[in-house]
Amino acid sequence: MSVTVRLADVVAALGGVLHGDAGLAINRLAPLESADAASLSFLANPRYAAKMATSAAACVVVAPDQQALAVARGAAIVTADPYLYFARLTQWWAARTRAAAVPGVHASAVVEPGALIHASASVGPFTCVGAGARIGAGVVIGSHGHIGAGAAVGEGTRLAPRVTLGDACVVGARGILHSGVVVGADGFGFAPSQGTWVKIEQLGAVRIGDDVEIGANTCIDRGALDDTVLDDGVKLYNLIQVGHNVHIGAHSAMAGCVGIAGSAKIGKHCTAGGGAIILGHLELVDHVHITAATVVTRSILKPGQYSGLFPFDDNASWEKNAATLRQLHTLRDRIRALEKSTK
Amino acid sequence: MSVTVRLADVVAALGGVLHGDAGLAINRLAPLESADAASLSFLANPRYAAKMATSAAACVVVAPDQQALAVARGAAIVTADPYLYFARLTQWWAARTRAAAVPGVHASAVVEPGALIHASASVGPFTCVGAGARIGAGVVIGSHGHIGAGAAVGEGTRLAPRVTLGDACVVGARGILHSGVVVGADGFGFAPSQGTWVKIEQLGAVRIGDDVEIGANTCIDRGALDDTVLDDGVKLYNLIQVGHNVHIGAHSAMAGCVGIAGSAKIGKHCTAGGGAIILGHLELVDHVHITAATVVTRSILKPGQYSGLFPFDDNASWEKNAATLRQLHTLRDRIRALEKSTK
Amino acid sequence: MSVTVRLADVVAALGGVLHGDAGLAINRLAPLESADAASLSFLANPRYAAKMATSAAACVVVAPDQQALAVARGAAIVTADPYLYFARLTQWWAARTRAAAVPGVHASAVVEPGALIHASASVGPFTCVGAGARIGAGVVIGSHGHIGAGAAVGEGTRLAPRVTLGDACVVGARGILHSGVVVGADGFGFAPSQGTWVKIEQLGAVRIGDDVEIGANTCIDRGALDDTVLDDGVKLYNLIQVGHNVHIGAHSAMAGCVGIAGSAKIGKHCTAGGGAIILGHLELVDHVHITAATVVTRSILKPGQYSGLFPFDDNASWEKNAATLRQLHTLRDRIRALEKSTK
Repeated sequence: MSVTVRLADVVAALGGVLHGDAGLAINRLAPLESADAASLSFLANPRYAAKMATSAAACVVVAPDQQALAVARGAAIVTADPYLYFARLTQWWAARTRAAAVPGVHASAVVEPGALIHASASVGPFTCVGAGARIGAGVVIGSHGHIGAGAAVGEGTRLAPRVTLGDACVVGARGILHSGVVVGADGFGFAPSQGTWVKIEQLGAVRIGDDVEIGANTCIDRGALDDTVLDDGVKLYNLIQVGHNVHIGAHSAMAGCVGIAGSAKIGKHCTAGGGAIILGHLELVDHVHITAATVVTRSILKPGQYSGLFPFDDNASWEKNAATLRQLHTLRDRIRALEKSTK
Repeated sequence: MSVTVRLADVVAALGGVLHGDAGLAINRLAPLESADAASLSFLANPRYAAKMATSAAACVVVAPDQQALAVARGAAIVTADPYLYFARLTQWWAARTRAAAVPGVHASAVVEPGALIHASASVGPFTCVGAGARIGAGVVIGSHGHIGAGAAVGEGTRLAPRVTLGDACVVGARGILHSGVVVGADGFGFAPSQGTWVKIEQLGAVRIGDDVEIGANTCIDRGALDDTVLDDGVKLYNLIQVGHNVHIGAHSAMAGCVGIAGSAKIGKHCTAGGGAIILGHLELVDHVHITAATVVTRSILKPGQYSGLFPFDDNASWEKNAATLRQLHTLRDRIRALEKSTK
Repeated sequence: MSVTVRLADVVAALGGVLHGDAGLAINRLAPLESADAASLSFLANPRYAAKMATSAAACVVVAPDQQALAVARGAAIVTADPYLYFARLTQWWAARTRAAAVPGVHASAVVEPGALIHASASVGPFTCVGAGARIGAGVVIGSHGHIGAGAAVGEGTRLAPRVTLGDACVVGARGILHSGVVVGADGFGFAPSQGTWVKIEQLGAVRIGDDVEIGANTCIDRGALDDTVLDDGVKLYNLIQVGHNVHIGAHSAMAGCVGIAGSAKIGKHCTAGGGAIILGHLELVDHVHITAATVVTRSILKPGQYSGLFPFDDNASWEKNAATLRQLHTLRDRIRALEKSTK
């Protein structure tokens, strides 16, 4: 759905101080590089000011300290935090350009007895809603969804096509679960017995707070006895693994391919870069930031940035250094010996 | 479904020696920390004995050497292996608290001609069963399943909603496949030709033994010519990648996010921690244990534990060490030079 | 579907010079080790010539320099590039042994108004095709597919069961998307605001070229403003994460579990081994090859092989070396001090 707005509409909806022609027509949001004369763009990082100077954008959202530069080249909207303004602008834009979900349950959906689906909710084709499940106001469930018995989806939450929410699992309000998400599969629990593994049935569930977004094909396992918990505002990206009884504190965010093993307890406002791994039964306090591909093998009790990835190099250099690394302990001993002999 | 049992019921079903009131009512299995006066708990590791002392649990399952301590605080069930006892208890509990699947094929399912579905099996909504597929006694296939032509699911195996079992692929008895599992996608095989990739059609299948559990969104590819094979008792967790023609020996277990490249041959009773990678065409003998995030780049012919992960540190320390690591080979040369000069 | 062909049929279809009985019956393609007297096999790597000598295969495809050895043991097809020949042979074989998809839309599928589905295309059970979507000639969409509004699938492309192609996303001709693929989920974009994350709606789409193969459960996110782009001939394996606005150049190939963060720009003819991670906003020029499990943290402007993985070892050795690694910078200082003192 294409749309044309005037700059006056934008500032009326989102605020900011407009410099330039309020009647300018905008039909696209675009980065500075690919913007054209009908594009609205933004400059969040002053480092890219040079890109703004050469951009064809009709108008650029900027911070006060970039106002002069922006106005010199065309229209500008000045606001304290251009990146935040831009985020809100994308939301406003999406609301105008995307087809709204039609309330109601698709004729092909299978709804078991005792499920409560709010009249304003939308349930897509080939979706199953289990006995006793509760679907809140304004919820959108895409095609091929599976909502287990006794599960609940809070007001305004959107499930993309093909999301599985297991029995008794709960998602709060205003969340977004992307395609392929599996909430409530079994945690990995076995008792060893004579060389075989005896399954520990996973009797807990998953409780997810409000304003949580979960990326495509990410898995959040149900707890063994108690529940796995994601607090309000948590953002998980794609292909993340969250083990049983993990607790992720409010507003923590994890990039793609992160793995969090069972019973890890992660604080509020933490972040983890792509591919990071957090081992089980650890605790990370609030405001801990893990660099991409880092493996956290013990608890972190002090806020800060933590890292542990092998620096990459051209293959020949890496080979030499990696080979030497396997003798590193010996090298230390040789240094010690030298120190003694030169004393 | 909530349930109340008496301690007498538990020991009647599962054995162990009960100390305390056999009539005590239990309505929940719980860890020591969150147990209440109607909870049955367990102590598997003597390290946590202090938690038992302060637990509100009605009864605790313990080993003989913890009997005195347990009985001092309340009822106890004494058994040689409390963790194993607890595993069986969760199974017994699940059987009593979870709704049993209703035998029969859901009206919405699509079953192609020649498929054989046992009368005691349950096939969920929107599931497809291909021509010539065989579904055994007591099998449960959740919603949105896809069972390919000529595939087979053994007696008592459970497929969660949304599992894909490709054409001609076979799963044994008593298995569990979680949501999002893909068995039988194509292995990654291409012949290079003038800068492009020519597809090698993957003509093998996947053969999975009995008592195998496969976690959510895990992928097991079909073989190129021969089959990919998982032997009895293998346990794979979520988001694992198993390439074509891999062979995983009986009772081996892999944690989440593990990747196993094509034609790797892994022995029996092996384990791999989360995020470990095993490169292709390697062999691991029985009883090899790979630490999380370790990359196995050559065959391992001796049982034992193998590791190779970068120790994490605060970011500043890591940066200094990582920078030095890129000169490690040079450092070794400098140590050699020093050794020569001080002789 | 089993099939029997004569060697004469093979060379008639695929070329090569046949040495031996053109009437020999073949009912299986097999590796040298498991081949039997009705198998056709191949020798791509002269290193395995000894396996050929002892193989029971009816016939082996070989390069001219292996002709003498091959003919000495039985029939042979001689061709310049046996591996490429074998790739084409698997395609020819698959076309003869796999049931062709039946054109037409399954009765259970949900097709929204304005979708254009070519008469020769096949749309499987429980598949949804959105408003305005275009499905080309000969396309096969398996069960449980979701084709978003305005999306397009090019001529001859095959979607396995359970593929999600988001709104406005486009896949070219002759592609293969495996089960669980999610094209067009939201990229991970948030503006921080007072300790919370404000969503940046992802307004771009995904554009995928011709002859692209995407493995099971791989995710390709839609762009934030502009599109995420995969050029012709790209091959991505299973469980790969491709962030928003990534650009992957023609004929680049990535092994399983690779993660590519947002806005990375990868050249043509690049490869990445399993579990490699490429951080965001980087550029890799053409012909860059990344070793498995390597984390690319800065742009690579020179073709070649790049590596950065921790060499694994037995656990005791690793522990000692890893502990020393955390003091590596200090060791360097100690070497410097020694050098000064011995001058």
